Amino acid sequence: MIIAKKNALYAQSGGVTAVINASACGVIQTARKHKDKIGKVYAGRDGIVGVLTEDLIDTTKESVAAIAALRYTPSGAFGSARYKLRGLEENKAQYERLIDVFRAHDIGYFFYNGGGDSQDTAWKVSQIGAKLGYPIICVGVPKTVDNDLAVTDCCPGFGSVAKYVATSMREAGFDVASMAKTSTKVFVLEVMGRHAGWITAACGLAAEKKGDAPHILLFPEIAFNQDKFLKRVDHAVKTYGYCAIAVSEGLKGPDGKFLSETGLRDAFGHAQLGGVGPNIAQLVRDNLGYKYHWAVADYLQRAARHIASKTDVDQAYALGKAAVELALKGNNAVMPTIVRKSNKPYRWTIGVTALKNVANKEKKMPRDFISADGFGLTEKCRTYLLPLIQGEDYPPFKNGLPNYVKLKNIAVAKKLSTKFKI
Amino acid sequence: MIIAKKNALYAQSGGVTAVINASACGVIQTARKHKDKIGKVYAGRDGIVGVLTEDLIDTTKESVAAIAALRYTPSGAFGSARYKLRGLEENKAQYERLIDVFRAHDIGYFFYNGGGDSQDTAWKVSQIGAKLGYPIICVGVPKTVDNDLAVTDCCPGFGSVAKYVATSMREAGFDVASMAKTSTKVFVLEVMGRHAGWITAACGLAAEKKGDAPHILLFPEIAFNQDKFLKRVDHAVKTYGYCAIAVSEGLKGPDGKFLSETGLRDAFGHAQLGGVGPNIAQLVRDNLGYKYHWAVADYLQRAARHIASKTDVDQAYALGKAAVELALKGNNAVMPTIVRKSNKPYRWTIGVTALKNVANKEKKMPRDFISADGFGLTEKCRTYLLPLIQGEDYPPFKNGLPNYVKLKNIAVAKKLSTKFKI
Repeated sequence: MIIAKKNALYAQSGGVTAVINASACGVIQTARKHKDKIGKVYAGRDGIVGVLTEDLIDTTKESVAAIAALRYTPSGAFGSARYKLRGLEENKAQYERLIDVFRAHDIGYFFYNGGGDSQDTAWKVSQIGAKLGYPIICVGVPKTVDNDLAVTDCCPGFGSVAKYVATSMREAGFDVASMAKTSTKVFVLEVMGRHAGWITAACGLAAEKKGDAPHILLFPEIAFNQDKFLKRVDHAVKTYGYCAIAVSEGLKGPDGKFLSETGLRDAFGHAQLGGVGPNIAQLVRDNLGYKYHWAVADYLQRAARHIASKTDVDQAYALGKAAVELALKGNNAVMPTIVRKSNKPYRWTIGVTALKNVANKEKKMPRDFISADGFGLTEKCRTYLLPLIQGEDYPPFKNGLPNYVKLKNIAVAKKLSTKFKI
Repeated sequence: MIIAKKNALYAQSGGVTAVINASACGVIQTARKHKDKIGKVYAGRDGIVGVLTEDLIDTTKESVAAIAALRYTPSGAFGSARYKLRGLEENKAQYERLIDVFRAHDIGYFFYNGGGDSQDTAWKVSQIGAKLGYPIICVGVPKTVDNDLAVTDCCPGFGSVAKYVATSMREAGFDVASMAKTSTKVFVLEVMGRHAGWITAACGLAAEKKGDAPHILLFPEIAFNQDKFLKRVDHAVKTYGYCAIAVSEGLKGPDGKFLSETGLRDAFGHAQLGGVGPNIAQLVRDNLGYKYHWAVADYLQRAARHIASKTDVDQAYALGKAAVELALKGNNAVMPTIVRKSNKPYRWTIGVTALKNVANKEKKMPRDFISADGFGLTEKCRTYLLPLIQGEDYPPFKNGLPNYVKLKNIAVAKKLSTKFKI
């Protein structure tokens, strides 16, 4: 198959991660090696929003060093967006606009770096191009801290969050253990993962021996049982002197409601601010009387490039690179994946799947990754998770702080006379 | 002055840090080099509580490797305590008990590793020994993440928290900036520092150019002005697309009350859980309507040995070493300090001060370290802070996580027939 030289368009989508820019680095560096087939690499400013509004960034204006620095820079260097395209029938105009922009800028390749929603969008774009008389090669690049994408063994972004939360839990656990005699006895760390408990499970990697923190994991997949939970907390405090708990932001009660949504009101009746972490901590004090502390890592966890997993960085880069290579071979409507070859030693390779296999799918924790009592992880889960946090890949430091790159992000001149309202 | 060979007692006090064990390492390794003058080094289990209850740990049972590993292990390896001894007149029995324990175990040197309260205790002990007929050499070792000890240029523990919060703020700032077009516009990071804004100021190191995160610092030293604050938030969002805020847990309103104490009640009327971070975030949404996220780093910040400042680690060790050397020269009732010799290049040396000069004193941020509008740091402050976060000193990793040491902490046989109730 012979493909005429075309430009490529790369866009970041959804919540950013510590390594999504490593994928961008893989895409751009690989494209730059194939100048016979790929002209310029453009990027959507603020993801698909920039594509729809014809606000494109010319990555050829960035130096070799700046593009290389993406490998160790967290966040989305071109901007990402929480903007879901609707169904083809509901809003065909959106897709027609994308094709107009592609045509105006001679885009032959579209690389969409995101989660399940984004792969759905990429899949739709891959189908509509031919229908509208402008065939385009769409290749997805997987990304999500939630690790909930189908088919791929794991998702770039997750390994680094996993390493961060496990490290933080170990460190906080040491802290609490050393003070518990006269101070805090219960510590709660709230982590991300609205529907899938992968990040919560990763906290459990901090515990290697009986009694190590964390003592309790609260998964979104397991309905919260208050009585059982409080008994476990009390047991841990009485046995080990303290209790460390990791809780998913998406923990639900037996009624299916998020625990973060219940209870607190301010003087004006506004819903409470705190997440589930403070709620769980307060519950412990109200029922058991133990002094508590809680932390909510929030964006710190997904942006923590300083403690990224080398495995994760390597995979993120490799997937970006593979996406370009797949496109150059004429593969449309696909996404490269991570395939696990073995656990000990950990070996992985790049596979490929059709976008329709990952579009809008969500991979929850298998039940046999969670202990029978619902409060811990199993050996099977540990075996799966451990390789993903292996290796350190520190960014360079300057003036005592990580020296991350900010790109110039120079706009491509608009060619369309029409505007598009987001 | 000739001193008979005596045992030494080391105790950790108050909130632990990422580097208090580096001071312990300095004390123990240095004492081990002077076996002609110092017999065994004992440690109080859970700090002064273990001393009062005659629950001492024999550090000679720990291997050379284990003691060396203290240098990179956060938390208090022997346990620390929040336990303040009362005044001499109020509770002389406590001090008499200390002397009884010292006498029973032939303790000639007492090293107390803590903040202002602890140095007050050490000072009292240094005075009472002679009065009770058992002279003891008391040397303080400074420690506090709050950086609020008098005389010393800085306090071990602070530099590492500073590096952690500045790194985290930079990373979260990159994250929010890249999503702001369609998602979170205001991010709030709550940090420690109940009375002194040193840690809040350190967050400001993340911003090197105009527009960099954080855009606003909220210090405990500056009464919160809601109108001025909201205007600044709105300005940042309109100018830079987003606003990142660092807030001290100790932020107070014009009425002098902590902002963390106001407002929220649950259905039973219990006081709110959230700290000031979520309160500030909610305030922004209620008044400006911006989507927000907030993080509360809590213990994660003071335990984050994985991103410790090398300068801080070096100083913590040096102060522990210096404490022993001071004691061996017969200095009683003193504390080694950090003396800054120059900023560029940063050079420091060890000084010494009398314990009474630091006992119960609190060093707040000088007003000229805070910008005139109260929302930022000055160049003077930056010049002071920057050297303290220089250098990385990563711990060894094993299985993807920091390989911190847990000591055996074997108890010394009790010699007293009496018990002491805490």
